[in-house]
Amino acid sequence: MTEEDVPSPTAAVLLIGDELLSGRTQDSNLAYIAKFLATYGIDVCEARMVRDREEEIAAALNVLRQHYTYVFTTGGIGPTHDDITTDAVGRAFGVPVDYHPEALALLAPRYKPGEFNDMRRRMARIPEGATLIRNSVSTAPGFQIANVFVLAGVPMIMRAMLEDVGPRLARGRVVISQTISAQIGEGRIAGALAQVQREHPAVIIGSYPAFAESGPRVQLVVRGRAGEAVERATSAIEAALRQDGISSTRIRD
Amino acid sequence: MTEEDVPSPTAAVLLIGDELLSGRTQDSNLAYIAKFLATYGIDVCEARMVRDREEEIAAALNVLRQHYTYVFTTGGIGPTHDDITTDAVGRAFGVPVDYHPEALALLAPRYKPGEFNDMRRRMARIPEGATLIRNSVSTAPGFQIANVFVLAGVPMIMRAMLEDVGPRLARGRVVISQTISAQIGEGRIAGALAQVQREHPAVIIGSYPAFAESGPRVQLVVRGRAGEAVERATSAIEAALRQDGISSTRIRD
Repeated sequence: MTEEDVPSPTAAVLLIGDELLSGRTQDSNLAYIAKFLATYGIDVCEARMVRDREEEIAAALNVLRQHYTYVFTTGGIGPTHDDITTDAVGRAFGVPVDYHPEALALLAPRYKPGEFNDMRRRMARIPEGATLIRNSVSTAPGFQIANVFVLAGVPMIMRAMLEDVGPRLARGRVVISQTISAQIGEGRIAGALAQVQREHPAVIIGSYPAFAESGPRVQLVVRGRAGEAVERATSAIEAALRQDGISSTRIRD
Repeated sequence: MTEEDVPSPTAAVLLIGDELLSGRTQDSNLAYIAKFLATYGIDVCEARMVRDREEEIAAALNVLRQHYTYVFTTGGIGPTHDDITTDAVGRAFGVPVDYHPEALALLAPRYKPGEFNDMRRRMARIPEGATLIRNSVSTAPGFQIANVFVLAGVPMIMRAMLEDVGPRLARGRVVISQTISAQIGEGRIAGALAQVQREHPAVIIGSYPAFAESGPRVQLVVRGRAGEAVERATSAIEAALRQDGISSTRIRD
């Protein structure tokens, strides 16, 4: 196979927590993970949000880990009763969960005598066969089991854990993108855009409308793994816009 | 059955678009839909994000529409080539998609002679058996087919469409919540919290930690459909905190 034929690694993100589905908490982890993985040439192909229910977490995880190269979960690995992700992962893999000596050794020194209580010790429970993921913010580790990375839900901690995950990931060819902005409704150039897409099958062209007080706008995003193909399609869109008397600008993502 | 025994309607949200999974666009529709449905007593139990691929959209939709009372999709119903949600919904239901006379009649007057081109007419294509959902912002309608509501992705339009959907929904008993805020790490009160949860099975208690410069904080959220049960559990948590010498405040959600 040539470099272009090698399939890039894929990923899914499983966001865990009642607070996401109630609208109480606005997730920001998905976008961060997606951008982080993009630098490795890994595409996030699907994301799911599930409640704090062991069977629902395990069921979603078992589908995703069989479909994608990697799965990243966020949330549910703290010390409280509603932190059930670790047990759900153990159930999904059919392995027992027990106190991990290294995790205990990391956590114990953080607490004053008598304060490392049973609930806090829960954070050292890790499914059999998993390796720890370092948490440089608040010590309590995440873990990796097979192709699944189990991360904290608090964004600052999740981001720190990703730094420890990065070196474990296979790399794909990075996606290159160009964005064109124009002050028109997308319907006006939809025909030309469809033709450019047909003529440039190596890229994916997305059209993202928005409405401002000054009127409709659109951002046209060209994405692909071959820089020359992205550039050719982007130029073709710009030429089509010019021909239609529409001025556009390239913007940096 | 008594009122408490009647199961509340459930919902899933299917967010459609490459731009969500690449991290380019931060979704805000899920939280809005969740809060909107909460006023009807409808719980959002699951959400999924999929790419602009017809087979992936259809597959996710067919799972979700069989599991939940309602499914809400966002995105992919505009005029451009990457707007494929309508065809995916037709495929999922096994019905043809064709121009809807009422949708054509709504859209045509918006355009100058000659401007209602083939691509714009795409927005009038609706799966057989669907009813339209009014769009008071930019006219192009969404649609309802069976228990699935197909909405725009642009938040301002999606929100307007929800107004037309509301009267079509069954109502459940509304979830009541109380939130307690304290300036401690959640591990310190995790044991007491677990006990209150055990003693108050009619509510769900969530513990949401955060880290500020001033130190760790936690918000404890008590949710349930019976106001008295929520109040009793909330008071029990406050009592446990006081007993541990921790001051807390109730905050309004």
